[in-house]
Amino acid sequence: MTMSASTLGTEVPQLSARAKVSGRAVYAGDVKLPGMLHGKVLRSPYPHARIVSIDTSAARALPGVKAVLTGDDAPDTLWGVHKKERAVLAKGVVRFAGEEVAAVAATSDEIARDALDLIQIEYEELPAIFTPDEALDEEAPGVHPGRNNIAHEIRFERGSVEAGFAEADLIHEATYSTHAQYPGYLEPMATVAALDGDGRLQVWTSTQSVFLARGRIATVLGLPVSRVRVMQAMTGGGFGGKIVEDDNQLVCGLLALKTGKPVRLVNNRLEDFLATPSSVPERITLKLGMKRDGRIVAKDVRIVAECGAYAGLSPEVMHVSAMRSDNMHRLQHVRSHATLVYTHTPPHGAFRGFGGTQMLFALNSHIDTMARELGLDPVAVHKLNAMQAGDTSVHGWKIGSTGLRECLDQCTKAMDWHTRRARSAAGQTGVKRRGVGVAAAMHVSGNRTMGNWDGSTVVLRLNEDGRAVVLSGECDMGQGAATMLAQVVAHELNIPLAHVHVAPPDTDTSPFAIGTLASRVTMSGGNAALVAGRKAKAQLFDVAAGLLGCEAEQLEIADCQVRVIGEPTRAKPLGDVVRQHIWRHGGEGLQVSGSWDPQTQMFDPATLMGNIAAAYSFAAQVVEVEVDTETGQVSVVDSFVSDDCGKAFNPLAIHGQSNGATAQAFGWALYEQLQVEGGRIANGNFADYNMPTADAIPLLRGGLVESNDPNGPLGAKGASETAILPGAPAIANAVFDAVGVRITDLPITPEKVLAALRAQRPESQHA
Amino acid sequence: MTMSASTLGTEVPQLSARAKVSGRAVYAGDVKLPGMLHGKVLRSPYPHARIVSIDTSAARALPGVKAVLTGDDAPDTLWGVHKKERAVLAKGVVRFAGEEVAAVAATSDEIARDALDLIQIEYEELPAIFTPDEALDEEAPGVHPGRNNIAHEIRFERGSVEAGFAEADLIHEATYSTHAQYPGYLEPMATVAALDGDGRLQVWTSTQSVFLARGRIATVLGLPVSRVRVMQAMTGGGFGGKIVEDDNQLVCGLLALKTGKPVRLVNNRLEDFLATPSSVPERITLKLGMKRDGRIVAKDVRIVAECGAYAGLSPEVMHVSAMRSDNMHRLQHVRSHATLVYTHTPPHGAFRGFGGTQMLFALNSHIDTMARELGLDPVAVHKLNAMQAGDTSVHGWKIGSTGLRECLDQCTKAMDWHTRRARSAAGQTGVKRRGVGVAAAMHVSGNRTMGNWDGSTVVLRLNEDGRAVVLSGECDMGQGAATMLAQVVAHELNIPLAHVHVAPPDTDTSPFAIGTLASRVTMSGGNAALVAGRKAKAQLFDVAAGLLGCEAEQLEIADCQVRVIGEPTRAKPLGDVVRQHIWRHGGEGLQVSGSWDPQTQMFDPATLMGNIAAAYSFAAQVVEVEVDTETGQVSVVDSFVSDDCGKAFNPLAIHGQSNGATAQAFGWALYEQLQVEGGRIANGNFADYNMPTADAIPLLRGGLVESNDPNGPLGAKGASETAILPGAPAIANAVFDAVGVRITDLPITPEKVLAALRAQRPESQHA
Repeated sequence: MTMSASTLGTEVPQLSARAKVSGRAVYAGDVKLPGMLHGKVLRSPYPHARIVSIDTSAARALPGVKAVLTGDDAPDTLWGVHKKERAVLAKGVVRFAGEEVAAVAATSDEIARDALDLIQIEYEELPAIFTPDEALDEEAPGVHPGRNNIAHEIRFERGSVEAGFAEADLIHEATYSTHAQYPGYLEPMATVAALDGDGRLQVWTSTQSVFLARGRIATVLGLPVSRVRVMQAMTGGGFGGKIVEDDNQLVCGLLALKTGKPVRLVNNRLEDFLATPSSVPERITLKLGMKRDGRIVAKDVRIVAECGAYAGLSPEVMHVSAMRSDNMHRLQHVRSHATLVYTHTPPHGAFRGFGGTQMLFALNSHIDTMARELGLDPVAVHKLNAMQAGDTSVHGWKIGSTGLRECLDQCTKAMDWHTRRARSAAGQTGVKRRGVGVAAAMHVSGNRTMGNWDGSTVVLRLNEDGRAVVLSGECDMGQGAATMLAQVVAHELNIPLAHVHVAPPDTDTSPFAIGTLASRVTMSGGNAALVAGRKAKAQLFDVAAGLLGCEAEQLEIADCQVRVIGEPTRAKPLGDVVRQHIWRHGGEGLQVSGSWDPQTQMFDPATLMGNIAAAYSFAAQVVEVEVDTETGQVSVVDSFVSDDCGKAFNPLAIHGQSNGATAQAFGWALYEQLQVEGGRIANGNFADYNMPTADAIPLLRGGLVESNDPNGPLGAKGASETAILPGAPAIANAVFDAVGVRITDLPITPEKVLAALRAQRPESQHA
Repeated sequence: MTMSASTLGTEVPQLSARAKVSGRAVYAGDVKLPGMLHGKVLRSPYPHARIVSIDTSAARALPGVKAVLTGDDAPDTLWGVHKKERAVLAKGVVRFAGEEVAAVAATSDEIARDALDLIQIEYEELPAIFTPDEALDEEAPGVHPGRNNIAHEIRFERGSVEAGFAEADLIHEATYSTHAQYPGYLEPMATVAALDGDGRLQVWTSTQSVFLARGRIATVLGLPVSRVRVMQAMTGGGFGGKIVEDDNQLVCGLLALKTGKPVRLVNNRLEDFLATPSSVPERITLKLGMKRDGRIVAKDVRIVAECGAYAGLSPEVMHVSAMRSDNMHRLQHVRSHATLVYTHTPPHGAFRGFGGTQMLFALNSHIDTMARELGLDPVAVHKLNAMQAGDTSVHGWKIGSTGLRECLDQCTKAMDWHTRRARSAAGQTGVKRRGVGVAAAMHVSGNRTMGNWDGSTVVLRLNEDGRAVVLSGECDMGQGAATMLAQVVAHELNIPLAHVHVAPPDTDTSPFAIGTLASRVTMSGGNAALVAGRKAKAQLFDVAAGLLGCEAEQLEIADCQVRVIGEPTRAKPLGDVVRQHIWRHGGEGLQVSGSWDPQTQMFDPATLMGNIAAAYSFAAQVVEVEVDTETGQVSVVDSFVSDDCGKAFNPLAIHGQSNGATAQAFGWALYEQLQVEGGRIANGNFADYNMPTADAIPLLRGGLVESNDPNGPLGAKGASETAILPGAPAIANAVFDAVGVRITDLPITPEKVLAALRAQRPESQHA
């Protein structure tokens, strides 16, 4: 009997698990090179100031100091995804507290730190803008000279929103505020840069994209991309913060170029808080029109988002907030006006969920409110409006698959939705009251935005032992990309997962790749791996057919052999076939390249219409909270998130991602908040910045929905990002369910809950 | 006007030149890893002994010692190219003085050395065999138990040698002795081995073949090849000694596996003398029959060669000695009987020239002698007998091109052959007498011996700046393979050489390759690069035709642009075309794979017939010597070597190789000699082992002959090895020309010359 070696659908530990738990994993900060220097960065203490003078002489004189660089030493080329506006080291002006002003390389970390203290800088403090409202004042000076403070603006209308509202039985408008969340990965940003023998700049770094990093480093440092080699070190989390918005790689590369020595630059946690983009705070005013039966007939959105001092990826994030959730429901009449605003605060940018979290907090809160008003179950409202497979959305998105209804059914069933909701609705009188809330979400699997390609290439090599090596430029930051690629290849070749090695991304040897963002890697990388696996199998069968005297169509791979189907003794070990592929006239090593690019359509810059992703993924979540009416404390006591991942290649990894996303959502909803006081981050450490720890999180439950996407590799879609989206609104809705107060301003702190509870009481009950 | 960017035919410095002169090149010994241990090897002081006991307790107890391994810790799998007969660490018996008996890994090199001193070994010395004659004695014990001392034997006869001799006007027989030469590369053998996070064994090493190294390390250490990754560090010379006959990689890998730590094992010079195969000493009895006009009508060869304690590659070397020179001349009747013999001496093996040097010393000496006897110019004899393009040799070799006659003409003209020879022939009477000698040689460009493939694959990637990355598994040890590959690609794409980066061989990312041996890389790797370059160009033109609105056939590459031929303004920068190749529907990074395998034929194991190489290269050399008749000292005062390299891609590199080869030949002929006393190498250092230094070498001259081989890439053949072949016999012939004595026993020491001069004088003149 033929046993399948495939692990698809089974729970497998990630390929890097052993390296990580054994301490053998080499993170960028673990890279040690002979003669390596240690870098340190001096940051602005002021949110806005003119640099009057910098005296580096004392720092330079310190023994062991090899370089002290300032803005004068930095390239003139500015960087930034959306706008090129940020210098590697500030030139003349600093625009946020934390901005990189000087950099040191020294023979030890301690000397480098001491040298920072010896740099004398005279600043002239300038008036700073800390809020979007101040920034949008017509009198406000521009954060960037010669420009107003609007970094980006999006406007569109589909159908007629006014006509839609005219049809509505209920119209509701409210404003929601969301705040910045620090990505909180375990590994702060880290880079080692060194010139190779030929003077090329080699960079080992913590990154989500080696090729985007290479392009940016080369451009900014004035090198052709071929003179830069970027290698992904083991990466301890990214969550969007390690795409292309860090200055760490650029400063480190500059120090290496200037000193000619290897330089290691590892952020400590405070530096990482200061330097890494946090998520984009948005104030969302949402107006929704609904028919009595729950059908949404009009949607009008106004967003004011804040990017901080530099735009980074915030315009793209806001674009998502302004549009993506429109595609979850069958809408006709929608309008958005979104404005991104500069302030003198640390930059915001990409973050897991990428703008979806913000808008879905508003939308799910709103639907909950309106459903209650209409006496409807919000679950029914979501299901009534939900897009179906085969639908094209108001923005032109083609929904190939959706498991949203199944997700809603699954999580509500698992959470006894009707029972628990009935209980809440029946009224509770104790100090601690419970409530349940639901939220629905959608995300993309890939995103045709950058250039006009969203493809991926996998090079697959078979060795003479019949095992495989996979070369891909898509990065694994811990979410499981490498394991996924290996699973797909192992499945296609029907070989054990342990027989597939995935080489870490390296711009010299990996095929070109966009990297890991927009939940694109399972979709594009997985499909490319499938193509490569099939090509390799065809080559194996071609050679084996000759060896076994049969047709290629008669062959299968099983038990690490190529054999004739139905005649298991007519077989050749895979390794023999690979060797024969080489050792013959006209032979060569068995190496194939598989590429895949989705048949998607970039959005039209004028109309913003287009089918941007190969697939769309969905999720729904129910949470139960307990609210202490005396303290205002909200505790999540139960949670079930359902993830429509298309096809679950590795349920263990998906649950891991869903759990992590859920915890991160809970942190955003309840605990985490960057304390920015006078433009300065005041809690840039894990003691004061409260990420939820185990005692704040109940045993997280979750389930998978397999909607088998027609474009996905064997049906799969992106799975790692969607699950962060519904957590916060589900909590807000549960809080309302428990105690009848609607918190529209995240995070949901005890103070806000208490204040709302007080406001809710009749006048006479006030103390 | 279109300027060609090609450097083919021009003198370009090697790509690694800057890295080497700036000290930035990373040789294996320069690789530093965190927690790296230092390895040391304890070697047998006896040529033959039983290991009675080993006490490692004191060594293990030394603080800082992390492992002390002996034969008991070594794998049972034995290694060796021809016969698997050698243990990583000796098991019970040592068979040569220098054999690896124990290995230590410690936290410093000093501690490791101290630990060696603490290992207590009791040996029982056993009778040792030091010469082939002793070994071939029927009573002699077997160096390897249960076998006689014949490691390998070759016999063949083509035509009828007896009939040939019957036709001869002159028959001459003589015996020649050649000795072992140490490869003398600047970088002794070095390896760093470490487990990666996943427990795979990573090896940085000085090697001529990463894939042969990987296969051997995996097999011997009991790992699947996919669990081993071999990366070529910058390599400081190989000369055949770094193919697959070292124990360094295996010991280092074993230490890393046993300790779980990175281990660095770098031979010091003495260790390298003891551990590295030197060239195979052969005693050659040659009988040649010649017609009066110089035509060779019969050749009979008997060879007794010595491999030392382990056969290694010596069987293949002897095979070459027995056959290859037969293909230089139009012969009909040839016979060989070659016997390879074990002795208790350090192993011999591959060495630049690979058996050709030994036999060509005999043959050229012989032809010189017989030509004199017949009153002929040896140059005329070579030319008369020389194979012509289109000929098939007596062994089935198809000579696609030969520049041998042109080489002879070139070097004799450059050296004023007739004038100087006439002078010598006229007689000289001073103490210092001058003479000239000539020799001719042939070599292979590739060799279909291993498995049945002699091909190569080049992966070529174009980056978004229009520059190229070449991935090849063929190794550059300094001879210029990387520069050659870059030149071919740059030529084909018509881009500057500096725009091509050749990544160092790495078994995880480079296409499978045999590696650098048998002068095969220009032939197979160069052709593969050509195929890859053409494929890449086709893809560029395909995309550019769309951009420029023309047919692909109308396009050319010039000035880093793709442009319409004859319309230089209709052009796109290469980088734009590459970007467009990616950023489009169905796009992908521009990466192609080019493979090439020659249409050669492996020799039949029974008949030894076959056309083994895609091309054959030729050389001729004239040297002038001055012989001091009072001291016997021979000095080379002038030399001109002509190299038929097919097509000279980089005359600078070829001259460098020719000069190096000439110096190495002079060393072998006159200076270098391993002093093996009682089986022990007595001069394993550069003070006592006399490689020729600058004052022993005249200004070396040389020239190129371009015979444009039909199979070669753009006509080229292997160029680096042939030039070592004619040096020694040319000197021997020049010595005869100067003073009339025939030295048949290398090296040509003053003692031998003096003794021969004395023997030459009439009885009365003796002192």
